[in-house]
Amino acid sequence: MRSQTTSRPRSWLDRPGLLLTDLYQLNMLQAYLEQGMTAPAAFEFFVRRLPAERNFLVAAGLEQVLEFLLTARFDAIELEWLAKTGRFSADFLSYLEGFEFRGDVDAMAEGTAFFADEPILRLVAPLPVAQLLETRLLNLLHFQTVIASKAARMVLAAGGKRLIDFGLRRAHGAEAGLLAARASYLAGFAGTATTPANLYWGIPIFGTMAHSFIQAHDDEVEAFRNFARARPEGLVLLIDTYDTERGAERVVRLAPDLSAAGIRIFGVRLDSGDLGQHARTVRRILDAGGLSEVSILVSGGLDEHEIGRLVGSGAPIDGFGIGTSLTTSSDAPALDCAYKLQEYAGRPRRKRSEGKATWPGRKQVYRRYDGAGRLAADLLTLDEDAEAEGAPLLRPVVRGGRALGATPALAKVRAHCARELARLPERLKALGEGADYPVEVSRPLVALRDKLDSEERGHA
Amino acid sequence: MRSQTTSRPRSWLDRPGLLLTDLYQLNMLQAYLEQGMTAPAAFEFFVRRLPAERNFLVAAGLEQVLEFLLTARFDAIELEWLAKTGRFSADFLSYLEGFEFRGDVDAMAEGTAFFADEPILRLVAPLPVAQLLETRLLNLLHFQTVIASKAARMVLAAGGKRLIDFGLRRAHGAEAGLLAARASYLAGFAGTATTPANLYWGIPIFGTMAHSFIQAHDDEVEAFRNFARARPEGLVLLIDTYDTERGAERVVRLAPDLSAAGIRIFGVRLDSGDLGQHARTVRRILDAGGLSEVSILVSGGLDEHEIGRLVGSGAPIDGFGIGTSLTTSSDAPALDCAYKLQEYAGRPRRKRSEGKATWPGRKQVYRRYDGAGRLAADLLTLDEDAEAEGAPLLRPVVRGGRALGATPALAKVRAHCARELARLPERLKALGEGADYPVEVSRPLVALRDKLDSEERGHA
Repeated sequence: MRSQTTSRPRSWLDRPGLLLTDLYQLNMLQAYLEQGMTAPAAFEFFVRRLPAERNFLVAAGLEQVLEFLLTARFDAIELEWLAKTGRFSADFLSYLEGFEFRGDVDAMAEGTAFFADEPILRLVAPLPVAQLLETRLLNLLHFQTVIASKAARMVLAAGGKRLIDFGLRRAHGAEAGLLAARASYLAGFAGTATTPANLYWGIPIFGTMAHSFIQAHDDEVEAFRNFARARPEGLVLLIDTYDTERGAERVVRLAPDLSAAGIRIFGVRLDSGDLGQHARTVRRILDAGGLSEVSILVSGGLDEHEIGRLVGSGAPIDGFGIGTSLTTSSDAPALDCAYKLQEYAGRPRRKRSEGKATWPGRKQVYRRYDGAGRLAADLLTLDEDAEAEGAPLLRPVVRGGRALGATPALAKVRAHCARELARLPERLKALGEGADYPVEVSRPLVALRDKLDSEERGHA
Repeated sequence: MRSQTTSRPRSWLDRPGLLLTDLYQLNMLQAYLEQGMTAPAAFEFFVRRLPAERNFLVAAGLEQVLEFLLTARFDAIELEWLAKTGRFSADFLSYLEGFEFRGDVDAMAEGTAFFADEPILRLVAPLPVAQLLETRLLNLLHFQTVIASKAARMVLAAGGKRLIDFGLRRAHGAEAGLLAARASYLAGFAGTATTPANLYWGIPIFGTMAHSFIQAHDDEVEAFRNFARARPEGLVLLIDTYDTERGAERVVRLAPDLSAAGIRIFGVRLDSGDLGQHARTVRRILDAGGLSEVSILVSGGLDEHEIGRLVGSGAPIDGFGIGTSLTTSSDAPALDCAYKLQEYAGRPRRKRSEGKATWPGRKQVYRRYDGAGRLAADLLTLDEDAEAEGAPLLRPVVRGGRALGATPALAKVRAHCARELARLPERLKALGEGADYPVEVSRPLVALRDKLDSEERGHA
């Protein structure tokens, strides 16, 4: 046991150690070690099928996966608990105490567009190491990829209008709220209301006001005035608590007083009703009142379809606050993803389960572009395929447990993602279903699959 | 500033402090304090509308909300960050440093069935305190309620068969995975594969084996044998990596060897294909091979409808491993819930926004049962309504910042939830849409709403 002690019991809220895994990983590890099966294993993360309304996905979460891999340990309380269960041998516990990842990782850059069957991460390490890391690696890479992929659709639908993440309250816990702020910013959101996202990642934060602030006052105008005095910068007033148009008129009547006090109204927010219709009326009221500089922000149950409709209708909306549909990716809260063993001890491996068969071996993805610089087709092939042309999308990021170079700054990742979205063919940018993108499987890869299948048949 | 220091920078993985909130809460707080608006405020958490496929919801997450409320503080790094932003006054920062919840909470017991518009938690505290706690309180109470409500449907569909949570890998982050294990156990699952759920809450944990274990071996039988030797207790073999029926035959051939070594096969797991059909064939193979005691567990993209169909078809399945559809509540990953100001400074408040109007005042829910002890109807009324009959569902749990009595053990909560499910009318237990349950709004509550509306109209 390590000597580390703590003054309070380990809580579900504390930084999770390696015990945050599926029990079967520990069961399998003990068996691997007993059998001396510690040769190098290559696992790959990929998505089997895209959800109905996803024409592409956006890789995200690599930074958090690397943080996890490079610091993954069991802590003292976890080791103590493992010993107490009586499920594991002393040898095995001592192995777990010394557990460390010293393997290799190749991955697509965060913000890269990708498609079904394409690995976005390959991890190579002794089999027990690579196996134990599976659950949390999936948990981290899957979630941010889900959110970045959803956010990218909203960014495309918004046509340049500002998007802000308002979704912490209905995100699935604290970590989901935080990582959704990161993943949506990466995909092109302007920022988030989730305050610590600025502390952790320097993401711009935005805040307006809530209905409760208005309701706590006896008078809406008094509420506007008090909020303006306390928060003069970037002032946004919420005007739909009682009646949206009347709220806008009250803003117009209040503006001269505020202006005299040196306070400029940045915007108003609408959170209910027919947002397009209200935006038009409110715009007219504000303009007639000399407030044509005041922005209109809308929020309230919006998704990419609603954003697209509002933008397409020409409604005078300057920005969107997006909550639940973003941070839960409500139409597709999960991807059919996997982290699968593709090679062990130098031999390619293949899972053949019905509907879940995998492409064996260490793989690479090559992308071709058309004359206009748009994505044209991908090639899925073996990493060793010397004849493949184009730039490989999976690049080395960790060797022997050490990161190769610094993690790219989030601003760079965000710029890369913006370039990726710009390079998508129009049919993939559309919100509708069913746009296809060609991912060709190389001849050597097909040949390898056929060879492994015939070996297994022969073996039966 | 507090003197507390840390040796490494604050990370998104660390125990979140009170900074985990929407920026607008801090903006509003500063305004409330500048205006001296610190009178008591009553906020209530409720769900506006049930998702299409929810005939009832299950309250969950109160234990974590109370942990949060009773320990909610800003930590040193957060306070330092707040000061550095330059957004807040020195007075306000010093208020935040001393922030503490010393208010009152009334709530429905975890595991209680509830319906639209019914508050499941009421918090009373000085307005700035009650306001600041909103975001994280919603984040915690919403998520477990989402999961417990989804899990309850699976429990009803499974008709007594064993359900196990396999969903950590696709849950939305670490906290979501952990809390989903708790919420699903509370609702009647037998346990989880998420290992630390046992360390934190004593929840039974289960683990089988993965396809990678089979694939890492050159031979499926050798893989079964090695796993059995290492994990002789509760041994479950995964038999669909190459061919399910052949896998079952291999188990039969291996069984005598294992039996000679004192190892009993507890079960086999099927994870692909037509699970009902495979279960029948596998059952015949196992029975014919003298393994009628061996259980059949199934997994792979199952939801409550699939569970219901498999159970209804009489397929010889003994247990279900449920992943993504449970831990993301895939058909309804969020509820239309709110935490709304209902009273401030002794005066009831009402939000009137279109489609989002609230029932004002401090409220209570009374439940009536029919002769068979089944839920008959609820009454939503004012807490002060002396004429309401029946037992109130909201009970005092915190007074003056102190918990009234110990948090009920999870086993007790689970038993309460089982009783609640048993007391549901059959139409609510069904998986279909649209079963209605009467929630009557009392006359005093309707009168209060009308009074507030006419006051606001008069005021305009």
